[in-house]
Amino acid sequence: IKREWDHWVMMGLIGFFVGMLGSTLKLVIEKIVESKFHHITILLKKEAFGLMWFLAIAMSMSLALASAVVVVYGEPAAAGSGIPDIMAYLNGISIRKIFGSKALVVKFFSCVFAVSAGLYGGQEGPMIHMGSAIGKILSQGVSFSGKYSKIPDFILFKRLRNMYDRRNFISAGAAAGVASAFTAPVGGLLFVLEEISSFWTHKLAWQIFFCCGVASFTTQAFTSLYRTGSLGSFSRAAFNIDQAINSQLTMFLPTVGVGIMGGLFAALFTWANLNICKWRNRNIVPRPWARIAEPAVVAFLTTTLAVLIPYLFECMPTRCKKDPSLPGCTPRYASSDVPEEGLMQYTCQAEGMYNPAATLFFTTGDRTIEHLLSRNTHYMFDYGSLITLFVVYFSLCCYTMGMAPALGSMVPALLIGSVLGRIAGLGVTDIVGIHEGEELTWVDPGGFALIGAAAFFGGLTRLTFTLAVVMIELTDETHFLLPIMTAVMVGKWTADLLIDSLYHKLIDLKCFPFLSDEPHVEECLDLYTVEDVMGRDVVTIPEIGSVALMAHILASCNHRALPVVEVTENGNEVFKGIILRSHVFSILAKESLFLEEDNPVVVSKSPSFSMGEGEEGVTNLHMEALGIAELVNLDDKMPVTLLAKTEGERKVMLGRLQAAEYHRRFVTLAPYIDQSSYRIAPTFSLERGFNLFRTMGLSHITVVDQNNEVVGIVSRKDLTNMNIYRKLEEIQERTDE
Amino acid sequence: IKREWDHWVMMGLIGFFVGMLGSTLKLVIEKIVESKFHHITILLKKEAFGLMWFLAIAMSMSLALASAVVVVYGEPAAAGSGIPDIMAYLNGISIRKIFGSKALVVKFFSCVFAVSAGLYGGQEGPMIHMGSAIGKILSQGVSFSGKYSKIPDFILFKRLRNMYDRRNFISAGAAAGVASAFTAPVGGLLFVLEEISSFWTHKLAWQIFFCCGVASFTTQAFTSLYRTGSLGSFSRAAFNIDQAINSQLTMFLPTVGVGIMGGLFAALFTWANLNICKWRNRNIVPRPWARIAEPAVVAFLTTTLAVLIPYLFECMPTRCKKDPSLPGCTPRYASSDVPEEGLMQYTCQAEGMYNPAATLFFTTGDRTIEHLLSRNTHYMFDYGSLITLFVVYFSLCCYTMGMAPALGSMVPALLIGSVLGRIAGLGVTDIVGIHEGEELTWVDPGGFALIGAAAFFGGLTRLTFTLAVVMIELTDETHFLLPIMTAVMVGKWTADLLIDSLYHKLIDLKCFPFLSDEPHVEECLDLYTVEDVMGRDVVTIPEIGSVALMAHILASCNHRALPVVEVTENGNEVFKGIILRSHVFSILAKESLFLEEDNPVVVSKSPSFSMGEGEEGVTNLHMEALGIAELVNLDDKMPVTLLAKTEGERKVMLGRLQAAEYHRRFVTLAPYIDQSSYRIAPTFSLERGFNLFRTMGLSHITVVDQNNEVVGIVSRKDLTNMNIYRKLEEIQERTDE
Repeated sequence: IKREWDHWVMMGLIGFFVGMLGSTLKLVIEKIVESKFHHITILLKKEAFGLMWFLAIAMSMSLALASAVVVVYGEPAAAGSGIPDIMAYLNGISIRKIFGSKALVVKFFSCVFAVSAGLYGGQEGPMIHMGSAIGKILSQGVSFSGKYSKIPDFILFKRLRNMYDRRNFISAGAAAGVASAFTAPVGGLLFVLEEISSFWTHKLAWQIFFCCGVASFTTQAFTSLYRTGSLGSFSRAAFNIDQAINSQLTMFLPTVGVGIMGGLFAALFTWANLNICKWRNRNIVPRPWARIAEPAVVAFLTTTLAVLIPYLFECMPTRCKKDPSLPGCTPRYASSDVPEEGLMQYTCQAEGMYNPAATLFFTTGDRTIEHLLSRNTHYMFDYGSLITLFVVYFSLCCYTMGMAPALGSMVPALLIGSVLGRIAGLGVTDIVGIHEGEELTWVDPGGFALIGAAAFFGGLTRLTFTLAVVMIELTDETHFLLPIMTAVMVGKWTADLLIDSLYHKLIDLKCFPFLSDEPHVEECLDLYTVEDVMGRDVVTIPEIGSVALMAHILASCNHRALPVVEVTENGNEVFKGIILRSHVFSILAKESLFLEEDNPVVVSKSPSFSMGEGEEGVTNLHMEALGIAELVNLDDKMPVTLLAKTEGERKVMLGRLQAAEYHRRFVTLAPYIDQSSYRIAPTFSLERGFNLFRTMGLSHITVVDQNNEVVGIVSRKDLTNMNIYRKLEEIQERTDE
Repeated sequence: IKREWDHWVMMGLIGFFVGMLGSTLKLVIEKIVESKFHHITILLKKEAFGLMWFLAIAMSMSLALASAVVVVYGEPAAAGSGIPDIMAYLNGISIRKIFGSKALVVKFFSCVFAVSAGLYGGQEGPMIHMGSAIGKILSQGVSFSGKYSKIPDFILFKRLRNMYDRRNFISAGAAAGVASAFTAPVGGLLFVLEEISSFWTHKLAWQIFFCCGVASFTTQAFTSLYRTGSLGSFSRAAFNIDQAINSQLTMFLPTVGVGIMGGLFAALFTWANLNICKWRNRNIVPRPWARIAEPAVVAFLTTTLAVLIPYLFECMPTRCKKDPSLPGCTPRYASSDVPEEGLMQYTCQAEGMYNPAATLFFTTGDRTIEHLLSRNTHYMFDYGSLITLFVVYFSLCCYTMGMAPALGSMVPALLIGSVLGRIAGLGVTDIVGIHEGEELTWVDPGGFALIGAAAFFGGLTRLTFTLAVVMIELTDETHFLLPIMTAVMVGKWTADLLIDSLYHKLIDLKCFPFLSDEPHVEECLDLYTVEDVMGRDVVTIPEIGSVALMAHILASCNHRALPVVEVTENGNEVFKGIILRSHVFSILAKESLFLEEDNPVVVSKSPSFSMGEGEEGVTNLHMEALGIAELVNLDDKMPVTLLAKTEGERKVMLGRLQAAEYHRRFVTLAPYIDQSSYRIAPTFSLERGFNLFRTMGLSHITVVDQNNEVVGIVSRKDLTNMNIYRKLEEIQERTDE
């Protein structure tokens, strides 16, 4: 801990700021929504329904419009929830701009506007993205308009400005985001652990645990400050369940049923959302006006449905058990009161009556979930209102996810799952009846709503133990841990049989070379070797060579790192290590490093000279996550295809290539080689190669033959599902012939 | 999932049997303790104190004696909690017998006797050990008296009988043990994750999650079956807290204080226990009679103190708030009732009175913890009884841990921490006073007991997020998550400053070559290379050679794996891969594999012939955890120093060495080489080498120079703290000269 105090301080700072941002976001949205409903309720009480409808539409359309405008014209990288991008980044793919300060600001406002507009989406996904952006900005400095100007350039934290620590702080920020959004400190840590499983170390987990604790603490403290005016008592869980029910053996049968349903619908959601996103990428995304108009249209639909649907539903009585003579108290309701507060009367202005559909539709998503999870309110919602909510929410949410505004799918997933569970629970109640005794207290639609939420969420995200912990932290209902675990498992299994997870599908849609935990191919990878998938056209660079030759090599390819070779007495070109393109570039720019040796080692393979070629196709090779000491402060905004950053530097490089003197002046790369680079034999098992690559977080492995000559290189792209599948297919075809 | 159905079925089976064993263990202990207290209570009611004391001592001494006898004469590997052994195994060190069926049976009975005897220890540690033994036995078959007789030799699960899966199932069993012992399914998974961090994959976590769920489910179902006679409702958490208290900002100040105290005493406990264990290893362990007598003596002391101490304490009134006129109701107790059931009257036979010390001492550890954690019972225990309990329990438990009986330190750690916390909480209550309002409900000694337990446990085990989850699962008190996290962190930090964790210290004491998450050395390992620590006297084996030569090489060293080299045209001996000693042995035993070639490649370095040498010093090198297809079913009970398993085989080998014909007959190892073995350059950074080794779970890495010739080998022992420290010191001395 002594050697790493700066890491700890930084973790604390990230936690603090994420917590502050999280509570601010929550409170700002709360205030806007409050004032929106305040105005609507006034009109509702005056029974001015037409005017109310108009006002509601006007407000949500303008908010939706604003949320789209800031994204489309501000920072398109801030669109959507951002979770697929974070997952891709943590997997080792570098993506531009997503953790910039501009993305952070835009995301905040877009999220505020979109959630306040009443669009079917939540603030949790964006909060995770904002958390990781804070992690990046605090630890690496701020960047403005493409140039790093390194404001808070504290000398204290300079040590943290490297690829390896950047990655860790971004993970910590994401974890803190979860901790703050769900008041789930342990869940935040586990979320990052489960998603980034490969690069995990004990020490990092311990630091992120601290970061999440601080974030959760700060959120709680600031929320209490905002709400009560003084730093006071900490609130309970987000969807606190007061009436705990013990779980019971017999409840596991319906739980499995709900799990299967959750998994099925989650797969359907994934499939539908994916196809909508594909359609949107073709038809909406290329047109900025369509991208801005789209949320407004959806907001119009959403609000109109929320206003109109409740009209179709009959009013229901609240206190039939206490007073069975009340109007509307049919035998069905005879045994139940609806004790909960916050019921919407809407058009049911009579005493003791409420409108079930209005209670579900005409409020925020959080409130709806609370209603759905409420215990001992068996008949609060009838099949009609629940099924309507399910159909409307499922289809609209399916469309909403992927639009321009910064919205996440976590709260919607919880809501859809809860409705599903509550419908099933209502069915079980109808079959078994309401029982007061110890044995059958679990027959409660609210309990099944919780199970349904876990199942649907599990089917959508494929999180396992993280989800179990998050559900507990969200609801404080520890007695349901086993049913929740069952639902998560069944939901995940069911969905696994049908389709890949939503996040992974969205990552594929964005064409990120994502490496999953193990390749999704039928064959056993242990039967193949890395030789079967490796890239064979390796560009190597000599340890010692003329300046012009080095410049030629840089110009002839766009690889971000190059294997360095040395020619031995035997004439073998043996592998020495890896050097980064940017380092070679820096060396070539420094004339003082050039040698005038007369007898440098001659390199046999002279790469062909072709200046233009390098500019085609971007290799988004991620630098080795484990990092090496950086010669220069690598600016990751430099398109890697460009030889030089600025026009001036470009001229320098052209000079190196053209002037004859540089054919006689030499440089040695020896001091700058990464001598800790991995090398494997071509006979290395593909399965183990994949594991090595993914577990150690590499960006490339050099393949050397038994004389230590470079025969190939395995990069991230060689190991994607697509590529392995294709290569293995080719091999099969060859052997079949 | 389709390809791996056998893994899933096995995980389910392990979960089921661990759960069954866990509930049986719990219930058997409960029955014995119940009958013990039943007899004692009868005598107590008759006021026959002398007789009662005698009976209590007789019962606990005989039980303690029995628990020691089964271990010492049955299976010494079953002694203690077994957690350090499991940690060492999961770290990659192979230890003999600890997962055998004999160890399982002995552990069960020893644990039952020891816990029933009232020794200060718990059944949770042994349960984890038994869980992993079940994982091993179910997946790998049963072994009796040293020979594998492969009962349940289902053809179905033959595929699972390899090093890699064995390791996973043992991990799963350990996790299921935690899940069953603490009714903490998620905690079980996280425990294994946090302890074995390095070899973790997503898929494994997902399977262990399932295994833990099944274990927890089975435990609950069987417990309800045993208790009520029918498979019924699931019980709550182990130490269920009904009266939840919201956490509040101001409570974090005393929480930090309790955290520091917990950490300090945890460090003291570790130091004291370690020194007692060292003393015991010298003076008790070598003498079987002493090892058996020791627990009986401790049981005598423990029982005597439990019987006598309550005599020293005054009786206290129970219902002063309701009826302040009761005798003993001083103003101090005026505002509090003691609502809890289960108070011991002991000698306080008057109505409405109880003996605080008897309530704490004269019962089981679990009950004591429940009393300590109880809320709204501010003045139930006075300083006197709490401090006495702390002193007695701390010192006796410190001595008890490490004796022969199978006892764990988890419940004692919770108990000691709870006392500590309750003392602090009583202090806070005395300062602040009892408040009914929302603001200061946290001023409750029971709440602080929970915090203290977390802090002490954290200081002892250095678990972080796992502990937070386990504490929640143990008590159902989610509102205290943030204070618990704070206490865990502060406790761990404090203890980290003073001493290494108890488990790691015990592992060091057993001389296991344990690899911690990162080496505990001052220097930055990135400044050194693997060349600085690698072993240089590598014994290589030629790819093709005479039978006699191969036999000589096997006889000349005791390495468990050997690098295979091939001589190239240039005369270089290039590295081809790794072969296991046992595989070479199997090849040499099969005469049909021998070739009569006339012109085999000649090997330059011919190792010296020395038969006896190999029998010195055992290298407990663990086979590569990632495993390679096994030629033979490796029996891990074979002492690796022996050239052959049986006398007959030994003769075969001697024949190979001595008969002249075998100098003319050749074998090729080529088809049996592990060609996926790791190789690194001598210039590889030591830090990255350590990470590679630990993260990929290797047992050795071959170091090759730039011609691919073997120049060294890095094994587990080269990377232990001790060795790195020593080697770096040597380098420093050399550079200083």
